[in-house]
Amino acid sequence: MQSLQDKASEWSGVKREDAFAIDEVNLFQKLGLQTFVNLSTKFYNRVYDDEEEWFRSIFGNSKKEDAIQNQYEFFVQRMGGPPLYSQRKGHPALIGRHRPFPVTHRAAERWLHHMQLALDETPDIDADSKVRMTNFFRHTAFFLVAGDEMKNQNQQTLCKHGIQQPAAQ
Amino acid sequence: MQSLQDKASEWSGVKREDAFAIDEVNLFQKLGLQTFVNLSTKFYNRVYDDEEEWFRSIFGNSKKEDAIQNQYEFFVQRMGGPPLYSQRKGHPALIGRHRPFPVTHRAAERWLHHMQLALDETPDIDADSKVRMTNFFRHTAFFLVAGDEMKNQNQQTLCKHGIQQPAAQ
Repeated sequence: MQSLQDKASEWSGVKREDAFAIDEVNLFQKLGLQTFVNLSTKFYNRVYDDEEEWFRSIFGNSKKEDAIQNQYEFFVQRMGGPPLYSQRKGHPALIGRHRPFPVTHRAAERWLHHMQLALDETPDIDADSKVRMTNFFRHTAFFLVAGDEMKNQNQQTLCKHGIQQPAAQ
Repeated sequence: MQSLQDKASEWSGVKREDAFAIDEVNLFQKLGLQTFVNLSTKFYNRVYDDEEEWFRSIFGNSKKEDAIQNQYEFFVQRMGGPPLYSQRKGHPALIGRHRPFPVTHRAAERWLHHMQLALDETPDIDADSKVRMTNFFRHTAFFLVAGDEMKNQNQQTLCKHGIQQPAAQ
């Protein structure tokens, strides 16, 4: 069976070593907290104003301020800064926390479209950091698509055969 | 709705700030790689020899060496060391990666029983570090129980109403 990270690499076109090249530099020390706040604010301003209603509606039950804080705290924690996200919310558990949302290939591409524009609009992010972050975001978006498909596959099997614990695989 | 981390705190009896007190000290620098390797080796030696077949069988489809490596690489990464786990396997995604397994209250307690004995058998772990790690493990185990129950609830609703994407919540 193809692993989550193999699917993420295949669909995103980003190799795992490129996705996690964010760990070769401390991006938090390089860019600072305010840059991450600015990036997430620009990103969610775009998302909450998206003309594509199908995408905008995915975020319809969350407040924009909360979405911004959740995102920049996770980025800060993952990119070399203090564990702000875990101090407030516990483990990132990316697949588990995205379970309520339909993370399709199309939704991943739309998310990345807005993030690319938000990166381009944040001048404090230098070109090298931008490449690292773009690869990380792209790989992660499709990692979550893979997580979403796993959820759907399990549900179909379970509904077909009656509700029971899935077997270890 | 009660959040994952609220459930984890209630069921484990460990407050979030105590669970993530692992972040106040760099446990990797304090203890070193070999201590984490030793801990995970002792832990899985116990698990794979567990007289309780229902628990041992949860791990039946994984090789012991792989289980050991996955665990100590995650601990090293999460407790201040290099991101060994992500370099090899991508995001930890704790809930997503535990999806194939029945993470019940009883399984969490059995996991913690073996881990407590493994900690006690690893003399390089000082008393303060042991308290921090015990709280982290206990909270995390029940965080995964909460993730497992979310999965089962979604499946029951979906099977009842036909297969569809769950609504955002």
